[in-house]
Amino acid sequence: MKALTQEQLDGVLREMDVEDVSRTTIRHCSAIAAELEKIAGEKFTHLEIGVPGLPPCSIGIEAQKKALDSGVASIYPPIYGVPELKQNGSRFVKAFLNTDINPKGIIPTTGSMQGAFTMALQCGQLDPKKDTILFLCPGFPPHGRQPDVVGMKQVWFDLYKYRGEKLRAKMESCMAGGNICAILYSNPNNPTWVCLTEDELKTIGGLADKYDAIVIEDLAYLCMDFRHDLSKPFEAPYQPTVSHYTDNYVLLISGSKIFSYAGERIAIACISDKLFKRDYPELRRRYHIGSFGDCFALIFLYISSSGTSHSAQHALAAMLEAACDGRYDFVKEMREYGKRSKRSRDIFYKHGFHLVYDRDGDSPISDGFFYTIEYKNLTNRQMMEGFLRCGLVAIALNTTGSDQDGLRICVSRLNTEEDFQKLDEHLTLFTSLYE
Amino acid sequence: MKALTQEQLDGVLREMDVEDVSRTTIRHCSAIAAELEKIAGEKFTHLEIGVPGLPPCSIGIEAQKKALDSGVASIYPPIYGVPELKQNGSRFVKAFLNTDINPKGIIPTTGSMQGAFTMALQCGQLDPKKDTILFLCPGFPPHGRQPDVVGMKQVWFDLYKYRGEKLRAKMESCMAGGNICAILYSNPNNPTWVCLTEDELKTIGGLADKYDAIVIEDLAYLCMDFRHDLSKPFEAPYQPTVSHYTDNYVLLISGSKIFSYAGERIAIACISDKLFKRDYPELRRRYHIGSFGDCFALIFLYISSSGTSHSAQHALAAMLEAACDGRYDFVKEMREYGKRSKRSRDIFYKHGFHLVYDRDGDSPISDGFFYTIEYKNLTNRQMMEGFLRCGLVAIALNTTGSDQDGLRICVSRLNTEEDFQKLDEHLTLFTSLYE
Repeated sequence: MKALTQEQLDGVLREMDVEDVSRTTIRHCSAIAAELEKIAGEKFTHLEIGVPGLPPCSIGIEAQKKALDSGVASIYPPIYGVPELKQNGSRFVKAFLNTDINPKGIIPTTGSMQGAFTMALQCGQLDPKKDTILFLCPGFPPHGRQPDVVGMKQVWFDLYKYRGEKLRAKMESCMAGGNICAILYSNPNNPTWVCLTEDELKTIGGLADKYDAIVIEDLAYLCMDFRHDLSKPFEAPYQPTVSHYTDNYVLLISGSKIFSYAGERIAIACISDKLFKRDYPELRRRYHIGSFGDCFALIFLYISSSGTSHSAQHALAAMLEAACDGRYDFVKEMREYGKRSKRSRDIFYKHGFHLVYDRDGDSPISDGFFYTIEYKNLTNRQMMEGFLRCGLVAIALNTTGSDQDGLRICVSRLNTEEDFQKLDEHLTLFTSLYE
Repeated sequence: MKALTQEQLDGVLREMDVEDVSRTTIRHCSAIAAELEKIAGEKFTHLEIGVPGLPPCSIGIEAQKKALDSGVASIYPPIYGVPELKQNGSRFVKAFLNTDINPKGIIPTTGSMQGAFTMALQCGQLDPKKDTILFLCPGFPPHGRQPDVVGMKQVWFDLYKYRGEKLRAKMESCMAGGNICAILYSNPNNPTWVCLTEDELKTIGGLADKYDAIVIEDLAYLCMDFRHDLSKPFEAPYQPTVSHYTDNYVLLISGSKIFSYAGERIAIACISDKLFKRDYPELRRRYHIGSFGDCFALIFLYISSSGTSHSAQHALAAMLEAACDGRYDFVKEMREYGKRSKRSRDIFYKHGFHLVYDRDGDSPISDGFFYTIEYKNLTNRQMMEGFLRCGLVAIALNTTGSDQDGLRICVSRLNTEEDFQKLDEHLTLFTSLYE
């Protein structure tokens, strides 16, 4: 293809009412690319959206179909989850994180999107003095949008300059006012694939205790730090997690990526035993239910969607069980993403790009689902516009709470030999704009 | 069974941390009944929860399984909905309501619970002066809870004294301050089975226009006013709806009751063509998306759950299509509830109960999914406690925004001959407490 002109791009953006393309959501970027594809007459290289690029785990499909045959479609899903899911969620957390959580605390949500949204909302209502959520950024853009939608306050900082020893002082500066109700981050990190070190997690857990804040740890990509083999159930090494360092935590584990089950919107929120039963007078006053876990299920999840797809709960239960039994090696399946990452990174390097977030402590960053790239001294907006003119689409780091210029690259849709060739071609086109 | 003693009941309530049983949620009532069943050693007559008491529509099951086989489980559901669902939702609204809505405005939600929640939230953000939602009560209890959870203001009144001509003046008194952003009600009504008359709907539509408020009409039980045959697609008579009297509306249509598909959490929000494209500067300022419909999908639904189960969307699409084609007569299936209503009402009458909400205009109320009962001059709490002591469980009208004393009776779980016998026995026990 030939690069589209700036005028062609501006025309589409104007028509779609987009002022600054570096500020759009992922779905919006996809929609813009779809319009540009019509003009270019060629399919773009889609590096923006984390659609699982693998088929769904067949164990889930079979279990879900069986559940449908058994008649669950007519029966409201139990708001605390079906027993099989609670049991196997608890086993899974033990098997891959070496963390003990009573099945009672394993509660299904309509994707971790709902888990993060409802959990942040509840955390903001535990104590009138604690009205602000702290994000360790960069992060998944809609997480930052969620508090806006319900008028909740948020603060965040970019981890880029605050890794290792520097993390404590920075977090203390955010938390010392006593107004932080919760700390949210994803680990491995979306968009940067930063994996927090044990020391960093210990710092976070310790500060959660010190300031009585709840850690919401989004583990969407758990066990996908391929520098270590985290694939063996009930065997070390385990996925690093804040749950080893505090009781003030909720873990969000989604079926979307680890089982390629994003279509069915199924995840679990895993609430620590101690937090589940903790009584919050403010919840009791407002909802007549004081227990953190009960209020989450009976109030927040109930009024949000009246629970989570009954058949999908059975699907996730079966997949978690198979993973615990060692019958299904989800990590092995996911290694495919690591390979795509390595190969596509090499293509970016060849064209003069660099990683933005490149290290965890002393180690070079792992290959995985995402990485972040920069080019010369281009701004977020310049890179986005250049990409879109040249048949590429990604999202800009400024939408993720990053202070750096660059783009997030998601490798999930690089499926075929042709996809990598096209990436190379489109990048050749891109770099020709800046020579 | 023998009636449980007040002490036994009080013991369970204390243990479950319930101060006033007439103020508990439906799920909580069910949980209390489950504890009492253990003590009584007998299954209770469950009149509290609207679980569909019929098997799920098999057309949905087959379509959902087919969708799972085709691989949709790995792919994020389109946030605006799959094309089949949008098309058939639009057809369905034409077929049974005689209302024209472009497929673009048909958007899937994770049950109408999510539809009502996210829609009310968005309506509260359209105009800083309009910060309050008006409920025409009685209503589905969680609808009243939804604004509380996000700190939104609400006002409501009990329709009991304001039917017909009196409705206008009462609504004007609520709306004249110019602070009402939306009007929400269910029709046919949960919990009373009140069906608003054409005159009343015309009043509501007219006032929505006059005060620029959006009507959120929950049609969970559409076409179930069995006094009229509303079962023929594309033929009068049609389901009465406010969409005949204003363009300021969103209709919520759920698969839960009409197709007995509650387990899968699948519904559609149907936004009028005019409202969908209306540009709200306040949405644009806050989210960079001004269109009502686009903002609802791309912001509110996205951050709530990232869309709705992909396979369940295909199930609902197939069921709506079959209903439009006349291949599946969902109204006929639902008539079963009307029969259960009539039979159980006769048992209540025999024991000296009366209907609380008993007329629509000049007509006696229809048989359907719910009705409301009162007994002598007992309060909500006295009735609830008496019921629970005698093997019965229902919900109290005070949780539904009603000013009347009484209980809501849901007939969906009266399935067998034995269920009706038990109802009779348990009511004999109940009345013996008050003689």
